[in-house]
Amino acid sequence: MNSTGRLFQITLYGESHQQAIGVVIDGVPPGLELDMQAIRADLKKRNPDAIGTTPRKEKDAFEITSGLFQDKTTGSPLHVTIENRDTRSGDYDHLKHHPRPGHSDHVAQVKYGGFNDYRGGGRFSGRLTAPIVIAGAIAKQFLPFQFSTRIKQLGSLKDMSKLDAYLQKITDEGDSVGGIIEVKVEGVPIGLGEPMFEKLEAKVSAMLFSIPAVKGVTFGTGFSGIEMKGSAFNDALLDETGKTETNHSGGVSGGISNGNPLIINVFIKPTASIKKAQTTYDKAENKIRELAIKGRHDVAIARRAPVVLENATAIVLADLYLMHQAYQTMLKKQ
Amino acid sequence: MNSTGRLFQITLYGESHQQAIGVVIDGVPPGLELDMQAIRADLKKRNPDAIGTTPRKEKDAFEITSGLFQDKTTGSPLHVTIENRDTRSGDYDHLKHHPRPGHSDHVAQVKYGGFNDYRGGGRFSGRLTAPIVIAGAIAKQFLPFQFSTRIKQLGSLKDMSKLDAYLQKITDEGDSVGGIIEVKVEGVPIGLGEPMFEKLEAKVSAMLFSIPAVKGVTFGTGFSGIEMKGSAFNDALLDETGKTETNHSGGVSGGISNGNPLIINVFIKPTASIKKAQTTYDKAENKIRELAIKGRHDVAIARRAPVVLENATAIVLADLYLMHQAYQTMLKKQ
Amino acid sequence: MNSTGRLFQITLYGESHQQAIGVVIDGVPPGLELDMQAIRADLKKRNPDAIGTTPRKEKDAFEITSGLFQDKTTGSPLHVTIENRDTRSGDYDHLKHHPRPGHSDHVAQVKYGGFNDYRGGGRFSGRLTAPIVIAGAIAKQFLPFQFSTRIKQLGSLKDMSKLDAYLQKITDEGDSVGGIIEVKVEGVPIGLGEPMFEKLEAKVSAMLFSIPAVKGVTFGTGFSGIEMKGSAFNDALLDETGKTETNHSGGVSGGISNGNPLIINVFIKPTASIKKAQTTYDKAENKIRELAIKGRHDVAIARRAPVVLENATAIVLADLYLMHQAYQTMLKKQ
Amino acid sequence: MNSTGRLFQITLYGESHQQAIGVVIDGVPPGLELDMQAIRADLKKRNPDAIGTTPRKEKDAFEITSGLFQDKTTGSPLHVTIENRDTRSGDYDHLKHHPRPGHSDHVAQVKYGGFNDYRGGGRFSGRLTAPIVIAGAIAKQFLPFQFSTRIKQLGSLKDMSKLDAYLQKITDEGDSVGGIIEVKVEGVPIGLGEPMFEKLEAKVSAMLFSIPAVKGVTFGTGFSGIEMKGSAFNDALLDETGKTETNHSGGVSGGISNGNPLIINVFIKPTASIKKAQTTYDKAENKIRELAIKGRHDVAIARRAPVVLENATAIVLADLYLMHQAYQTMLKKQ
Repeated sequence: MNSTGRLFQITLYGESHQQAIGVVIDGVPPGLELDMQAIRADLKKRNPDAIGTTPRKEKDAFEITSGLFQDKTTGSPLHVTIENRDTRSGDYDHLKHHPRPGHSDHVAQVKYGGFNDYRGGGRFSGRLTAPIVIAGAIAKQFLPFQFSTRIKQLGSLKDMSKLDAYLQKITDEGDSVGGIIEVKVEGVPIGLGEPMFEKLEAKVSAMLFSIPAVKGVTFGTGFSGIEMKGSAFNDALLDETGKTETNHSGGVSGGISNGNPLIINVFIKPTASIKKAQTTYDKAENKIRELAIKGRHDVAIARRAPVVLENATAIVLADLYLMHQAYQTMLKKQ
Repeated sequence: MNSTGRLFQITLYGESHQQAIGVVIDGVPPGLELDMQAIRADLKKRNPDAIGTTPRKEKDAFEITSGLFQDKTTGSPLHVTIENRDTRSGDYDHLKHHPRPGHSDHVAQVKYGGFNDYRGGGRFSGRLTAPIVIAGAIAKQFLPFQFSTRIKQLGSLKDMSKLDAYLQKITDEGDSVGGIIEVKVEGVPIGLGEPMFEKLEAKVSAMLFSIPAVKGVTFGTGFSGIEMKGSAFNDALLDETGKTETNHSGGVSGGISNGNPLIINVFIKPTASIKKAQTTYDKAENKIRELAIKGRHDVAIARRAPVVLENATAIVLADLYLMHQAYQTMLKKQ
Repeated sequence: MNSTGRLFQITLYGESHQQAIGVVIDGVPPGLELDMQAIRADLKKRNPDAIGTTPRKEKDAFEITSGLFQDKTTGSPLHVTIENRDTRSGDYDHLKHHPRPGHSDHVAQVKYGGFNDYRGGGRFSGRLTAPIVIAGAIAKQFLPFQFSTRIKQLGSLKDMSKLDAYLQKITDEGDSVGGIIEVKVEGVPIGLGEPMFEKLEAKVSAMLFSIPAVKGVTFGTGFSGIEMKGSAFNDALLDETGKTETNHSGGVSGGISNGNPLIINVFIKPTASIKKAQTTYDKAENKIRELAIKGRHDVAIARRAPVVLENATAIVLADLYLMHQAYQTMLKKQ
Repeated sequence: MNSTGRLFQITLYGESHQQAIGVVIDGVPPGLELDMQAIRADLKKRNPDAIGTTPRKEKDAFEITSGLFQDKTTGSPLHVTIENRDTRSGDYDHLKHHPRPGHSDHVAQVKYGGFNDYRGGGRFSGRLTAPIVIAGAIAKQFLPFQFSTRIKQLGSLKDMSKLDAYLQKITDEGDSVGGIIEVKVEGVPIGLGEPMFEKLEAKVSAMLFSIPAVKGVTFGTGFSGIEMKGSAFNDALLDETGKTETNHSGGVSGGISNGNPLIINVFIKPTASIKKAQTTYDKAENKIRELAIKGRHDVAIARRAPVVLENATAIVLADLYLMHQAYQTMLKKQ
């Protein structure tokens, strides 16, 4: 299902090689003057001219076809559409017969009875993250929080000053790498998250795992805290604002924001498409065969992912923020 | 919000020290003869007589007050209730003034305007996982999958044959440890998971992060695969059933089950309640003070968590399984 | 599916002759001191000692087993349960073979594969309206609106001063009648209702049609305005508050409350269970046979329905009210 | 909120005078070869060249920008968009100051803080029913049911052979009329509808009340059965298929389809926009003033509404049909 959210709700559509992809964004407060430049800047971060990223450079020129009047949001849903232009559909015909390792080609073919649009990964394409970036960019415009991200590790590389050289080497090998990306959100007050099933971590993780290639999500110290004891892991409260001495819990207690920065770590698996020869099952001939993937691909999708993860997080926080408004207003009336 | 699921839907209620906790389970197929013994067995796994687990031994005697007729499900929602008996509410009065580190005491007090029931953690209590175990035990009775779990690491302990001695040591220290637990589901066919926002990983992670103390979720190799290149990480397809040579993706491709075993790893943080002295903020006196927590607590909640995580996963798979039935039936009609 | 609502959400369970029926009520603001007497008074209105109503007088003694602490709501879901006591299950065995006209006996048997609990109508029983009355009674305690209802017509009777004599006559005939009931809500400000699919009329009608025996819902003048022209039907605006000269639209414009009283008319069909002989299909013998229904039934369910309809409306308005709070707060921030 | 449906889900966007309106349609089975001509035929029924309908003749040329591959549905959401071409925005500037009687102008202005797009009614425009017609036309292509509609009454006119003359008379008066429209669906098996809150009547009514100008919905005999007694109203079962002697219940028992034709009656209020002079409140001058509405309007929206109501019903039935598939498949496995 392609809609998510309770008060701030997005509906996504599109496949990589059809006419357009897009998103309907519902629940944007009326009267917001959209900063188009900020949206474009976020889209550019997702699609940088950088080593290790695909040479397919979509212009990502988006159009807002409803929900705006006299440059301000009207309270009606925004519809944002992006045309698919730079597609080379011929590259993909072979996928029907020998699915690419690490991709969803075979799964999609079985699930959709062979009717799925396999070109460019169809609906499973990373291209679908562009509308998520746009929706999140809009959410950030009315959320009073500060978002930031950083790549913590890319393959075996931990020192990001050597990024270009490292990725050039991986490119030359015809291989790919994954990464660990941290999303940080500051300025979130105590109270976002609705137990039992719309806790902050539950909703954020669901959104992040909707993004292709995400295979792990932690809040705060996460798995690397496995050897810590409770006396070390517990964050000691310092004052009324919720500030704690440490932040091993990543800004979330009991599924609710606790007043400290949100710290989210995401594992992105290595890009599935690689030039290097691999083996796969050939359906037509019922045998294992070798496969070398052509086309234009990212060597490190993780280099483009930070803004996607950041904005996906913003979409969820917008929803929780609106819910929080509703309940807080009622609380004050008691 | 306390309901989740689209076709198989559960609604949870209850707080640790009030009269009862319970769950409404909707979407159970009619005509299912419930195996009560299997439900009880799962509840017992959550509440074992084992070193490192709380001496508060609720009987967890549950009652099904609707949805059953002549020992079979009727197609109406099941309502399952568990009375809270062995509560010692006097233990918790102090929480109003000096919140326990690592707990949601302060957050809950702020969010609910001081009206929350703070006794025993209230709605944030691990006790709320008992109804989840029940709902999942019922889901497993109509799902044709095989579920299993194992504790991979507990604090610094990796060799589970030394578990009792290790936990006795932590108990003696008045401290606690967390753990990494693996949930495995075999027999899942290709096709469970509904892009874009009800992908298998998205829904499972949301459910798992709803469980207290969960701070990390991965599918397949996860963060430990960070140094692998695409050529090593990609799972090579072997045949039509979707079987792959390796299973780094944990049985999920493009958010959809791919025919291989689901492998989910969950990080449980160390139990927040420890006997050892800690510091916290004293609201009444506006200063930092020392705090030693009394009461009966788990030293390693991770020892009780496996069945909770397994059954939480089953709840989600039941929902995705029902959705899959609907769409597959339609596909066959085209 | 047995849950409804976005921010104020109820989940219903129960069947007429099993152990209990109940409701989980989510989204009640914390700190509300529940007026139990008001809840009981509403339940009594649903179950009056009056001619034309069933002699089965459930005590409707309800228990709130979670969500209350020190007599106030905690912000966690309330769980309210009512035991089924005065049941005579022996009365219903015959239903398996010859379904009662006007009832859902046959439909339920087919849909649920014969596993449904047919006793007393099972989940289709009017008994399930008791938890709705309770949930609505609680909603009314935090909604700043004034609710009222009146029976406009009962069978052919329009002069309610002759009610008892009329219903005695119908009782003596062994027959039943339906009714038209008006629900009125005053004090609703402009703005409740969220286009396109959560308009006030859409949500209220969905809730009202969930109540057994409801077969028609109108807002304002409704069908009886069919001969009016636009120049007569249009309500002329008088001032900023939204007050209009007439109220043919029933207080709703474009699916949103317009500041005038909500006027909702509901058609309740005649009670299906009658003493008088009828014909039905006998499944066992595959022939049409005569049927005279025994048991204790209402002659005019419409006499008990007003508080059910009123409180069902309140449940929906609570949900829309909370949504309105969220968006209005954001609007003020622009 | 602009999304509705559980398995067959639509998301609507658009405002009358912006660039485009559209709909995202999720849950369409893959492999369906869309009959474009059938969609166009339904759109034409909504926009006929007939007396009493607006001279604004949008071409309603729609584009499907995703979800189709090699002329068949892919299993991904369809996105359908219609450009707004024949708009005359200058006609509407005055609405800011003196709201039109019977319209939502004032309500929208208050609710959205004056930021709503008031031109042509904005999101409240009947134009938004075009995407509903499209979505329903697609639903009808995989539903094995027969849909039909008829206008039962238009203003005071009951004999539809005199329709053109009657509407010409109303047009000459500068006035408008409403209507009663019947939607009939044949071939629906026993079992569609999910108690307690997704009963067939609840979901259909919610969808119908989402359509502008709908102010009443009944199933079967409805309000006109008020004087019938139970012995007359009850539908006597004739055989296993659910067929009954009469169909006063309109094909729905207990909120579930009962095997007889669905009969739904809808009251459409008279078109609010009329040429005849009316009074309204002038916000700028704070006084009551006269108003004569210019522009191109329908005299009897009811003449265009039948296909809208039919297709709106189809959207809901598609959702219930898919749910029914899921549960029936499971039932067979018990």
